[in-house]
Amino acid sequence: MNYPADLAKLISYYQKLPGIGEKSAERLAIATLEFSDEEAEDFSEVIKSSKKNLTRCSICGHLTDKEICDICSDNDRNKNVICVIEDYKSIFSFEKTGTFNGTYHVLNGLISPMDDIGPEDINLSSLINRVEKLEHPELILALKPTVEGEATTLYIKKILENKNVTISRLSYGIPIGAEIDYLDNVTLEKALEDRKKISE
Amino acid sequence: MNYPADLAKLISYYQKLPGIGEKSAERLAIATLEFSDEEAEDFSEVIKSSKKNLTRCSICGHLTDKEICDICSDNDRNKNVICVIEDYKSIFSFEKTGTFNGTYHVLNGLISPMDDIGPEDINLSSLINRVEKLEHPELILALKPTVEGEATTLYIKKILENKNVTISRLSYGIPIGAEIDYLDNVTLEKALEDRKKISE
Repeated sequence: MNYPADLAKLISYYQKLPGIGEKSAERLAIATLEFSDEEAEDFSEVIKSSKKNLTRCSICGHLTDKEICDICSDNDRNKNVICVIEDYKSIFSFEKTGTFNGTYHVLNGLISPMDDIGPEDINLSSLINRVEKLEHPELILALKPTVEGEATTLYIKKILENKNVTISRLSYGIPIGAEIDYLDNVTLEKALEDRKKISE
Repeated sequence: MNYPADLAKLISYYQKLPGIGEKSAERLAIATLEFSDEEAEDFSEVIKSSKKNLTRCSICGHLTDKEICDICSDNDRNKNVICVIEDYKSIFSFEKTGTFNGTYHVLNGLISPMDDIGPEDINLSSLINRVEKLEHPELILALKPTVEGEATTLYIKKILENKNVTISRLSYGIPIGAEIDYLDNVTLEKALEDRKKISE
């Protein structure tokens, strides 16, 4: 396809983004050309400034433009409850539920012996530091139910065994709205295992 | 949602793009943060430069970074055949078919008495100029089958009546792959009208 050079380049950048194919990238690039001069200037600017200004919270590892993120510096949040996640992106999902009032800890990865990723390669020592400073903290492990997630969960459970920490993990089970007939075996098995008593 | 300021702004720009909702905009913005510094710089730059460098071809009105676009300046294209379109974006679609070897003319709009858009408000006089310089040109009208498209088609047909121009329009009909059972009445009616004899 014979696009003018700048348009071709713009399309190629949109194509680098997740879920954007050739056709969508063309559409987005053309829509960008239709931005006003001010908008284009501003959009261009924020791509650079966001790369420069956004770093990681020195406590929890969340994305922030400050030394300490808004969640860690919010006095209304329960610092004794720490939700442990693989990736900061999950924080946006949790925050959207609007019901979690604790704090987070971003591991930036999971233990994976297959890929030569050990406990020292992820953001774990700072979690242990945080836990040790608290009186009776609660950890909620929100790691994905894969071999790596399980390995990391087990490791954290083991190293914090005698440290007076309550540890839980997210429940596995049937996603809301799902048809039980169409659920995969493993999810159904987990939903049985994690079944919740509703009457004695 | 409490995004850091730069991230919120980046998300808001992605949301201005067609077909990008809140969730996708967040995904694209975060993916942009994961670009390398060079990529972010370059992406940012091309958004500005494309706005600055891309103008319209002085002959046909196509998007170009030159005075005359690649198609109009290509000696292998048949200058006697002009495909008339509403919007330059259609050119990319036609070019992808790879079978059209003529040139284009972008009207930048359609005649619409309802919206007070007359023949003088669209890029028509330059089309007549082009036609008048050619010996026996062929015009292919590729305008959408709406009231405005029909009005523009009729107007062009009328003003070029005695100018030795062959004029055709794209055929209406069944899109390839469609189920005839599910076609709308109007398309089916047009497909009947535009039916093609395949044997005498």
